[in-house]
Amino acid sequence: MTSIVDKFSKLGVTSAPGQELLQMTDELELRGLSIQGEPVDFSHGDVDAFPPIPGTKESFMNGFDQGAEQAYTAYRGKQDILEMMADRLGSFTGAPIEVSSDIILTPGTQGALFLAMGANVARGDKVAIVEPDYFANRKLTEFFEGELVAVKMDYLNTEEGSGLDLTELEESFRDGVKLFLFSNPNNPTGVIYSSQEINTIATLAEQYGVNVIVDQLYSRQIFDGRSYTHLRGLGVMNPDNLLTIIGPSKTESLSGFRLGAAFGSPAMIERMEKLQAIVSLRTAGYCQAVYANWFSEPEGWMVERIAQHQAIRDDIHALFNAADGFQVRLPEGGSYLFPQIPKIDLNILDFTKALRLQAAVSVTAGTEFGPQFTNCFRINFSQDHEAAGAAIARTIEIINRYRI
Amino acid sequence: MTSIVDKFSKLGVTSAPGQELLQMTDELELRGLSIQGEPVDFSHGDVDAFPPIPGTKESFMNGFDQGAEQAYTAYRGKQDILEMMADRLGSFTGAPIEVSSDIILTPGTQGALFLAMGANVARGDKVAIVEPDYFANRKLTEFFEGELVAVKMDYLNTEEGSGLDLTELEESFRDGVKLFLFSNPNNPTGVIYSSQEINTIATLAEQYGVNVIVDQLYSRQIFDGRSYTHLRGLGVMNPDNLLTIIGPSKTESLSGFRLGAAFGSPAMIERMEKLQAIVSLRTAGYCQAVYANWFSEPEGWMVERIAQHQAIRDDIHALFNAADGFQVRLPEGGSYLFPQIPKIDLNILDFTKALRLQAAVSVTAGTEFGPQFTNCFRINFSQDHEAAGAAIARTIEIINRYRI
Repeated sequence: MTSIVDKFSKLGVTSAPGQELLQMTDELELRGLSIQGEPVDFSHGDVDAFPPIPGTKESFMNGFDQGAEQAYTAYRGKQDILEMMADRLGSFTGAPIEVSSDIILTPGTQGALFLAMGANVARGDKVAIVEPDYFANRKLTEFFEGELVAVKMDYLNTEEGSGLDLTELEESFRDGVKLFLFSNPNNPTGVIYSSQEINTIATLAEQYGVNVIVDQLYSRQIFDGRSYTHLRGLGVMNPDNLLTIIGPSKTESLSGFRLGAAFGSPAMIERMEKLQAIVSLRTAGYCQAVYANWFSEPEGWMVERIAQHQAIRDDIHALFNAADGFQVRLPEGGSYLFPQIPKIDLNILDFTKALRLQAAVSVTAGTEFGPQFTNCFRINFSQDHEAAGAAIARTIEIINRYRI
Repeated sequence: MTSIVDKFSKLGVTSAPGQELLQMTDELELRGLSIQGEPVDFSHGDVDAFPPIPGTKESFMNGFDQGAEQAYTAYRGKQDILEMMADRLGSFTGAPIEVSSDIILTPGTQGALFLAMGANVARGDKVAIVEPDYFANRKLTEFFEGELVAVKMDYLNTEEGSGLDLTELEESFRDGVKLFLFSNPNNPTGVIYSSQEINTIATLAEQYGVNVIVDQLYSRQIFDGRSYTHLRGLGVMNPDNLLTIIGPSKTESLSGFRLGAAFGSPAMIERMEKLQAIVSLRTAGYCQAVYANWFSEPEGWMVERIAQHQAIRDDIHALFNAADGFQVRLPEGGSYLFPQIPKIDLNILDFTKALRLQAAVSVTAGTEFGPQFTNCFRINFSQDHEAAGAAIARTIEIINRYRI
């Protein structure tokens, strides 16, 4: 029988974004002097550079002033807020959401993901996960004692769509996978699944009776006017087998409030509610008042925000492209970029430590997104534009110092 | 192998506090007309009657204005807030807290409890739980697939202390219990464990190598000038085996922010951090700024708040005592009271529905706290004083209608 110590030995946090201070750095042999420059933490977005939606502070205060009815909501969330979000998210994703059965408000998109996985994965269940994909997908599968089945995504050698290996996906479904979890736009590469890929995923899921959780955290931040296909809006999958999750922590910069939402399958939502009741009762009541501003941004605000991110993306992508030995696909949505670096004399974790110590730049090691990404790292480029560009220049310089 | 549907079938939410609107009431045969009166929801405290600590709204706004460093903290919490709380909670509980290893900030005390149980209970582990005790203790043990071992507490026939059956507790420890979880003051009865009881618990835990989680949520709200024994302050238990949890949601009325804390065993805290990373990343960043006001209330504010609750307790206790056929122990701390009612013609769940429909009063069925409490209910008397007394009078009248 697995002891609790064994169970947790797989779950690491020291290489996770934002946890860099926990890392040991004593044994690193550094080459050269430090490079001066404004520190940039690419492990997550900078809400000083991209502040929250205007008016969110005021919404919070209104919530606080409403007192008891806002402080103590039902576990799924406050009724009028659920109604508002069911309406807005239904319109956004192209299929109606029944407020009494199809939606739950959660503490962040991470909270939605945790509840969704807890509500779907029993011990021994096979769970298909994309590689690369968000690092918590793997950890959650392991925590709930599911059996992880990795499906490759050849994002570097694909022009249209993600490059997900659909043959491998079907094989995994045929071999008994119960649940398929993926993010779209993909974290960490920023690629968008093509309409054809989403259609195939939906068709295969129906054919083999597989449940699907799609993490659409960045689905409002799409570049170059590309089209984005909402799986639930296609109408191919039985809505009982599909859950969509999203939240305003990224493009909208509301992470400090911890807000998210999950919608779709009534049976999954019901189990998620039961789990929420013992995890943290509800999304912080006063914070729930801030949902009012989401999908209700001032005229032009989202367009401008997306344009600003697209401009940063272009500059950073150009820097990597111009450098020798890097491979990087242009992100089509979201704020992540996932370069593959030339061969260096450090493993990727030690490289992230050296980079932080020598250039005041924090990035997330590729191995967080799949064990094979030993020569990649992820950056979140939702940063001050100028500082981000300078930090990438320093990053390339540090990499060149350690090249083999 | 347990399917996910089986796993969740045990976890209910419709009878949980605050979820009453989910209940079906069609088949009830009600006796007599409704009794008019101001609605009172005894399922949780009323933050309109007892508002949050003064200054908390301002602290939140300061946090929001601090931007990125407050929005994105490490998973355990923001460093300066951790230092502040380690200091305050160490002083309060009588044993120092090492900030780098012994403390984590959590989304409410519920969040602390969930992380603590998730970090301690592996499948098949025996967990000792008091009956009656907080309903989530049972659900969490079941969710993490522990084996529940109930230990009786004869609170009604005990003058000094809780009446926990210490012989039964020792037997459970001898039989291989790995973890003992209990609340002090006890939820739902409001009794305080005597110094002798706490000493015995600590001694037995050491003797048998049992880990202990003590939920001290209400330990600042002690009536009649009674003494309260902090388990960790005794110095009997190895600090590595003990975790204490607490939060400002009750006496301090900060539930709408979802704030809590767990402190003690470094190994447990480390596992809780790993779990927090995949549950919801962190306690909402802006909300963390509100910890500043906890254990730093205005001069005299806590004394007055406790006195107000003691006065409500006295009046409600007197009403039940004067009524025929009730048994109730005077709560010594906290805001809960757990009357045992005379025999009636309804099961306890249907009674709570009838009471809500006929008298606009919500209470929590005793069976939430242990299957044998079929003739008890819990109230949270942190309510408007006058409305609470009137609601209890209506409650007694409704009970009398259904008496056998």
